[in-house]
Amino acid sequence: MKLTVYLAGQIHDDWRDTLTQKAKQHNLPLTFVGPQTNHEQSDNIGEDVLGEQPDHITKDDAASDINNFRTQILMEQADIVIALFGENYKQWNTAMDASLAIAKNKPVMIIRPTTLVHPLKELSNKANVTVENVDQAIDVLQYVFL
Amino acid sequence: MKLTVYLAGQIHDDWRDTLTQKAKQHNLPLTFVGPQTNHEQSDNIGEDVLGEQPDHITKDDAASDINNFRTQILMEQADIVIALFGENYKQWNTAMDASLAIAKNKPVMIIRPTTLVHPLKELSNKANVTVENVDQAIDVLQYVFL
Amino acid sequence: MKLTVYLAGQIHDDWRDTLTQKAKQHNLPLTFVGPQTNHEQSDNIGEDVLGEQPDHITKDDAASDINNFRTQILMEQADIVIALFGENYKQWNTAMDASLAIAKNKPVMIIRPTTLVHPLKELSNKANVTVENVDQAIDVLQYVFL
Amino acid sequence: MKLTVYLAGQIHDDWRDTLTQKAKQHNLPLTFVGPQTNHEQSDNIGEDVLGEQPDHITKDDAASDINNFRTQILMEQADIVIALFGENYKQWNTAMDASLAIAKNKPVMIIRPTTLVHPLKELSNKANVTVENVDQAIDVLQYVFL
Amino acid sequence: MKLTVYLAGQIHDDWRDTLTQKAKQHNLPLTFVGPQTNHEQSDNIGEDVLGEQPDHITKDDAASDINNFRTQILMEQADIVIALFGENYKQWNTAMDASLAIAKNKPVMIIRPTTLVHPLKELSNKANVTVENVDQAIDVLQYVFL
Amino acid sequence: MKLTVYLAGQIHDDWRDTLTQKAKQHNLPLTFVGPQTNHEQSDNIGEDVLGEQPDHITKDDAASDINNFRTQILMEQADIVIALFGENYKQWNTAMDASLAIAKNKPVMIIRPTTLVHPLKELSNKANVTVENVDQAIDVLQYVFL
Amino acid sequence: MKLTVYLAGQIHDDWRDTLTQKAKQHNLPLTFVGPQTNHEQSDNIGEDVLGEQPDHITKDDAASDINNFRTQILMEQADIVIALFGENYKQWNTAMDASLAIAKNKPVMIIRPTTLVHPLKELSNKANVTVENVDQAIDVLQYVFL
Amino acid sequence: MKLTVYLAGQIHDDWRDTLTQKAKQHNLPLTFVGPQTNHEQSDNIGEDVLGEQPDHITKDDAASDINNFRTQILMEQADIVIALFGENYKQWNTAMDASLAIAKNKPVMIIRPTTLVHPLKELSNKANVTVENVDQAIDVLQYVFL
Repeated sequence: MKLTVYLAGQIHDDWRDTLTQKAKQHNLPLTFVGPQTNHEQSDNIGEDVLGEQPDHITKDDAASDINNFRTQILMEQADIVIALFGENYKQWNTAMDASLAIAKNKPVMIIRPTTLVHPLKELSNKANVTVENVDQAIDVLQYVFL
Repeated sequence: MKLTVYLAGQIHDDWRDTLTQKAKQHNLPLTFVGPQTNHEQSDNIGEDVLGEQPDHITKDDAASDINNFRTQILMEQADIVIALFGENYKQWNTAMDASLAIAKNKPVMIIRPTTLVHPLKELSNKANVTVENVDQAIDVLQYVFL
Repeated sequence: MKLTVYLAGQIHDDWRDTLTQKAKQHNLPLTFVGPQTNHEQSDNIGEDVLGEQPDHITKDDAASDINNFRTQILMEQADIVIALFGENYKQWNTAMDASLAIAKNKPVMIIRPTTLVHPLKELSNKANVTVENVDQAIDVLQYVFL
Repeated sequence: MKLTVYLAGQIHDDWRDTLTQKAKQHNLPLTFVGPQTNHEQSDNIGEDVLGEQPDHITKDDAASDINNFRTQILMEQADIVIALFGENYKQWNTAMDASLAIAKNKPVMIIRPTTLVHPLKELSNKANVTVENVDQAIDVLQYVFL
Repeated sequence: MKLTVYLAGQIHDDWRDTLTQKAKQHNLPLTFVGPQTNHEQSDNIGEDVLGEQPDHITKDDAASDINNFRTQILMEQADIVIALFGENYKQWNTAMDASLAIAKNKPVMIIRPTTLVHPLKELSNKANVTVENVDQAIDVLQYVFL
Repeated sequence: MKLTVYLAGQIHDDWRDTLTQKAKQHNLPLTFVGPQTNHEQSDNIGEDVLGEQPDHITKDDAASDINNFRTQILMEQADIVIALFGENYKQWNTAMDASLAIAKNKPVMIIRPTTLVHPLKELSNKANVTVENVDQAIDVLQYVFL
Repeated sequence: MKLTVYLAGQIHDDWRDTLTQKAKQHNLPLTFVGPQTNHEQSDNIGEDVLGEQPDHITKDDAASDINNFRTQILMEQADIVIALFGENYKQWNTAMDASLAIAKNKPVMIIRPTTLVHPLKELSNKANVTVENVDQAIDVLQYVFL
Repeated sequence: MKLTVYLAGQIHDDWRDTLTQKAKQHNLPLTFVGPQTNHEQSDNIGEDVLGEQPDHITKDDAASDINNFRTQILMEQADIVIALFGENYKQWNTAMDASLAIAKNKPVMIIRPTTLVHPLKELSNKANVTVENVDQAIDVLQYVFL
């Protein structure tokens, strides 16, 4: 049984690489997918495809079209969704992806520092599991295959 | 045809009252529901029902149980969801509610200042309409009945 | 038993009024809803709400946001969808609405002249009934209540 | 991860071959399916199977039965739907297929010249992405795998 | 709580009237709907609406379009489906309606003589309840409101 | 907004009356439905309708047909499900009803004494709220309407 | 692309073998599944597993449990359903399977002699295609892969 | 055709090993999954991942998070669910898993001693098949592939 995991969350550090490496070290039969992690590419993809747009709102709209197209394709393939929240950034896409996954009955694990317990309490409550760091997330993933 | 509107979003000012008043002035056949807007009550409802909890995490978890119970009941009744984002607060519940509504095929309108165009671009892209203030939201609601 | 009927199709003549009048004359317990039939208003609603847009593409996009918001709300209320195709115009919205209704398991009746048999053959095949004019559509609606 | 793409749209030029070739050149892990592109065969399949029909309406109905059977099977396999609109023909099947795919939550990309912005504005608005030509469509497909 | 019951089954005797009368005598809060019970009208409705058809196959196809349109509308309103099987006729519509209702998670009761136990065993097994006559069906309906 | 509440759980004491009375005292706009609370009638309904059965297994099967028919009808009407677990009895129907309601996305509240925390931990975890007694359940229901 | 076809219908002649052979001769990438075709085994499977039952009704009920378990598993795997109706037998299982498949949005082809046009008209109308014999069914299946 | 079977039920004896062995002996193309069968690990997994919890309620809640995460992932992969009930333990998880599987339209077989006929009668009635021991369950599984 091979499973696919969508890694939702911010794209400003290398948490996906860390998690993917640890999963590999534990020989977990998992394939990982996620959003475009090159921030510039993610912001510019609309103009990269369609050419220059009249203003930044239209540019953002064109980029979001293609980012959402990508996410919808990849999340549809996912058996599990992991959503990481950190101290910085708005992270509304992370909340959006986690909520969508819950609505679609996909098992969801949230990773967040304890400083975020309060603002995330309703979303944590709907997700299956909430842990505090990538190591704990790996522990939970391992348990699925024990 | 009477429709029910769920008003998702922060509970720190009176935007719901403003919107509800304006809808009334325009004789729109709308009933409005939403989260508990008494912030203290929303945070304490777990302990109010179950008694004192061992720590703030458990207190938050107990409150979120009941807040989610309430939201699920009321959103299930809603024909339309309006989600307002402002400059302050994490507002992950707002993103969660809007995303859930989209996943459940409920028509969704977002209200947000233009300063938030960029961080909300993917969620805006999935919602039906994004406007900048309550007056524009009323214009859109009116158009449904023209 | 009162039923709601969504009337999809072009907005350039008064076929909706004709159909609604005839239904009334036959005392059919039907409420009719449909798209915005004021063409200018339908095209301008984006700018009417959000103000002038940078170009006609953005203007169209803003209008379509709100037209789709309206259609989604009203079609969700509909127990029956009637889609009229005529000789003129692209009428892709009509095909879009009829196909959506079929996908959502709503009973669908198409009205079209026999000159359109060939290009509409696959959509007609998926709809429940295809008739040639409004009078025949009324006959079918009457039969539901006999 | 191998994905299947349904190519909806007119069958009077070789746009599917062009797109398929370019996808191959970029080594995209995609399989393409679509409607019967032999126009005569598509029109005659009913009589080819069932024998001569009493009139052209019945002939069309018999053909549409089998074309819809085919489309339903193949679209059900598709992870992505691309719908191309051109200047000619009614193209109601293209609108029907795109709308069905959207209703079934399949990611949808529309290809259309800018001359069609206005009549396609509501359908474009519901699709994930709209581009202007096959090269841009390939750019978007590539982005999914970056 | 008022409930609607769809009465599927043959239209060659007055079992629907009998059942409806008995439900009334017991003051059960039920509304009954069902197929067109005028056999001739049911067979001719296609030609009544569209005019004479080229042959009996096309005539039957036209009638079935409109009968299915009617059934889909009314069954969608139903909270309960009762399907009566008798000794005569093919009764494939009855099996079709009962199976559809089961697939759509509507509670289904079958009425059939014990002579039909064997050929109906798989359908009975999927339905909620199977009884032998209208009086027993009324007993079961009464129990819902006790 | 009037809501319907299905009260799942054992039928050996009068907890439903107590809860219903308290809801009335608080003027909560709720209608309550539930299983047949006359135990003997619930066990005998199969034979009451169909006559004596060959053995107790067949008798039980006949009764369960009709009890499940009843539950399916009433739970389908419910906006909220409350499931009470006590110290006695197997209560597998209570677990079955609660799990079905969760699977159907109905908001679920569990009432159980703290002695049952451990064996109910997975079901509690999936339900929205778990409380310890009827008074707390009323507090939660009240909160929905505050 | 390999597809699975469920062959619903009577089990008293070898039509499944004929169809399967012809599909093989045409190299169609199809796997065929279907009900238990050993009639005696199908009727006795309940007693074969559970031992002798008190009467023929209970024996039939036990057999239908297991036949429905089997059909549900195999039909869930099917991408296409073919239902053959002949002149003999009640064939209510065939109607039940075809209707279930339609309700679950599986593409359905009916095979029936023209003598059955009238009693099957509503079911044919809901299925995608109706043909008259196995050879025509093979023609249609071939067309899917052309 | 390889199928996956989820084995719900108590984890205090080796019934899963027995069933798995027998399936292997019969060369049934089945893969088996199920809950964590190490009881201690199942109870402690919350604290194993998150560290010591303030009390046994919170410990249980943390464990149930992760057990439900695991079950949801594995049951989603299952084509068949087998639920075994024995004389001991509350077994509410078993009832919960069986009911969820039924609600999700997965074929369900129950294994239980005849002493449990009465308390399990409603759940048995909703499941596809109920047998009395592992050998009979194997007989039924074999029949699927005959």
